[in-house]
Amino acid sequence: MTANASSKTPVTLLGLGAMGTALARTWLAAGHPLTVWNRTPARADALVGEGAKASGGVAEAVAASTLVVVCLLDDASVGEALVGVDLDGKDLVNLTTTTPAQARARAEWAAERGARYLDGGIMAVPPMVGVPEAGGYVFYSGAAGLFEEHRETLAVPVGTRYVGADAGHAALHDVALLSGMYGMFAGVHHAFALLRKEDIDPVGFAPLLADWLAAMAQGVHLTADQLRSGDYTKGVVSSLGMQVAGTPTFLATAEQQGVSTELLRPYFDLMARRLAEADGDEDLTGVVELLVR
Amino acid sequence: MTANASSKTPVTLLGLGAMGTALARTWLAAGHPLTVWNRTPARADALVGEGAKASGGVAEAVAASTLVVVCLLDDASVGEALVGVDLDGKDLVNLTTTTPAQARARAEWAAERGARYLDGGIMAVPPMVGVPEAGGYVFYSGAAGLFEEHRETLAVPVGTRYVGADAGHAALHDVALLSGMYGMFAGVHHAFALLRKEDIDPVGFAPLLADWLAAMAQGVHLTADQLRSGDYTKGVVSSLGMQVAGTPTFLATAEQQGVSTELLRPYFDLMARRLAEADGDEDLTGVVELLVR
Ligand SMILES: NC(=O)c1ccc[n+]([C@@H]2O[C@H](COP(=O)([O-])OP(=O)(O)OC[C@H]3O[C@@H](n4cnc5c(N)ncnc54)[C@H](OP(=O)(O)O)[C@@H]3O)[C@@H](O)[C@H]2O)c1
Ligand SMILES: NC(=O)c1ccc[n+]([C@@H]2O[C@H](COP(=O)([O-])OP(=O)(O)OC[C@H]3O[C@@H](n4cnc5c(N)ncnc54)[C@H](OP(=O)(O)O)[C@@H]3O)[C@@H](O)[C@H]2O)c1
Repeated sequence: MTANASSKTPVTLLGLGAMGTALARTWLAAGHPLTVWNRTPARADALVGEGAKASGGVAEAVAASTLVVVCLLDDASVGEALVGVDLDGKDLVNLTTTTPAQARARAEWAAERGARYLDGGIMAVPPMVGVPEAGGYVFYSGAAGLFEEHRETLAVPVGTRYVGADAGHAALHDVALLSGMYGMFAGVHHAFALLRKEDIDPVGFAPLLADWLAAMAQGVHLTADQLRSGDYTKGVVSSLGMQVAGTPTFLATAEQQGVSTELLRPYFDLMARRLAEADGDEDLTGVVELLVR
Repeated sequence: MTANASSKTPVTLLGLGAMGTALARTWLAAGHPLTVWNRTPARADALVGEGAKASGGVAEAVAASTLVVVCLLDDASVGEALVGVDLDGKDLVNLTTTTPAQARARAEWAAERGARYLDGGIMAVPPMVGVPEAGGYVFYSGAAGLFEEHRETLAVPVGTRYVGADAGHAALHDVALLSGMYGMFAGVHHAFALLRKEDIDPVGFAPLLADWLAAMAQGVHLTADQLRSGDYTKGVVSSLGMQVAGTPTFLATAEQQGVSTELLRPYFDLMARRLAEADGDEDLTGVVELLVR
């Protein structure tokens, strides 16, 4: 805690789940006056012992600070928690995970109630909060001026990345990164499954896989260049034609190892569909077009 | 070329496609006597101009060196190219991409013909060959002593990773890493598809995605620990239960953005199946068990 706590922006935090609790501790540690509220009041007890102000109810908590940060389960719980609460003149920062459409609707809902609104998407897990070297951050979107006003306070728990005025864009960035990650996890789990019946130590294999994926992740930059220019033959090292020709080896290996091909096939099918209609000298990037209706 | 070329192990190389040609140049540059053969002889012309010995046919090429490296299209082409050729006393190193079962069968086939056998799986594209800082390498499997005898020569084009005596294990490592990569590419293409209808520059988004994936790839180490111990609750930061609860947000976002869910759904379905039968406090790792028959 700093010597002069009162110079720091007061924060009200709604939601003391695993994430809210982690956020709360960083604002307390940085000397921000912090008012907390949680549906189940007992979850506030430890934080009150650490210097947070408890509140008689959600309306009282919201009344305590201009800056109101919300970190609840989902969009529906935000609506439920704030029903009938006076938000006029408040700066609402919603870190609850939602879809882009929910974020946009929530921004309108806030505006109708006289509040300014920022949406956030948290790219961190609770153990990364308050640990700058862990590299976690939050995507923010909404009015740039509002973000600037609160940037310093919002940067206390984890880093910030402002991604534009459209309130839905923080959620969209969040979902896009996590969707990419789940694709990678699917590949990782398929890879480990292939070794399952062999005398191969997964711990010995892990650095090979981790380093390979980290290196191949850099291909994202070329993919982005190709998408921007619309030229999918630019900088190609392994052509679509060559890669489609290689897919039977991956499917046959899975069969040989008794591993289901359900995680591999959908992407290979798209590669083949793209090859049927496009230039075999392209990169894999054209698959993106097949995904968008 | 070194001053005393004759001190270097002679190499015969069968196959002068994109990869074979790249390999050939590194052995020539390092001063290895190199005999080359290609089904379409004209592809040898440039290399002969650079110092390689042409051969009248595949049998003559094989006869020229004890160490015979093969880099052809696929396993069938290896069988076709070497039909009737005397392999007795040869050290055959097969860098052709195959399945593990094909590699094992090819090892037996070589043994029946009096040849020693190493199998290789190339984790590089031609522009990475001869460029150590590019980080490419070849997985090798087969007799450890044979690998040691030729390690120095085999390390000339790219790095080497020996992965055991089972001839199929180089191919298995190769396929496992590439399968993991295709999973990641599926995720990457889904992520870019989500942005397609928005005013978001893919080139601005790329570093966010690349860095996120590279960071998340480090989770492979924890997955491997969990698989080795069989304890999938060890070190969990985001539980299976919490992650399954989050999947509707990813599917709904895809729908909102007009993006097909075909690449996301199979993995989410497996997560849900695992949750139905296991502890919600587990990590995602249990999905591996559902993939193996
Ligand atoms: N944990 C992570 O790793 C992580 C990472 C990134 C983003 N996030 C996001 O952060 C948000 C919070 O996550 P968390 O991990 O803190 O979740 P959590 O531990 O499950 O806590 C959920 C919170 O929401 C409250 N809540 C649920 N339904 C409510 C309702 N109808 N009305 C009022 N309050 C309600 C709960 O109150 P009670 O205590 O009364 O149940 C609790 O405070 C979520 O949107 C999540 O997606 C989490
Ligand atoms: N290129 C890459 O990025 C890469 C990366 C990793 C691994 N690999 C692997 O390396 C191997 C070679 O790849 P590459 O890129 O060099 O392929 P490529 O450029 O298509 O060359 C194929 C080679 O195989 C020969 N061939 C095909 N069928 C044959 C047959 N029936 N009999 C004799 N020769 C035959 C071709 O001879 P002709 O000239 O007469 O057609 C040519 O030399 C493949 O297994 C590939 O999977 C390649």
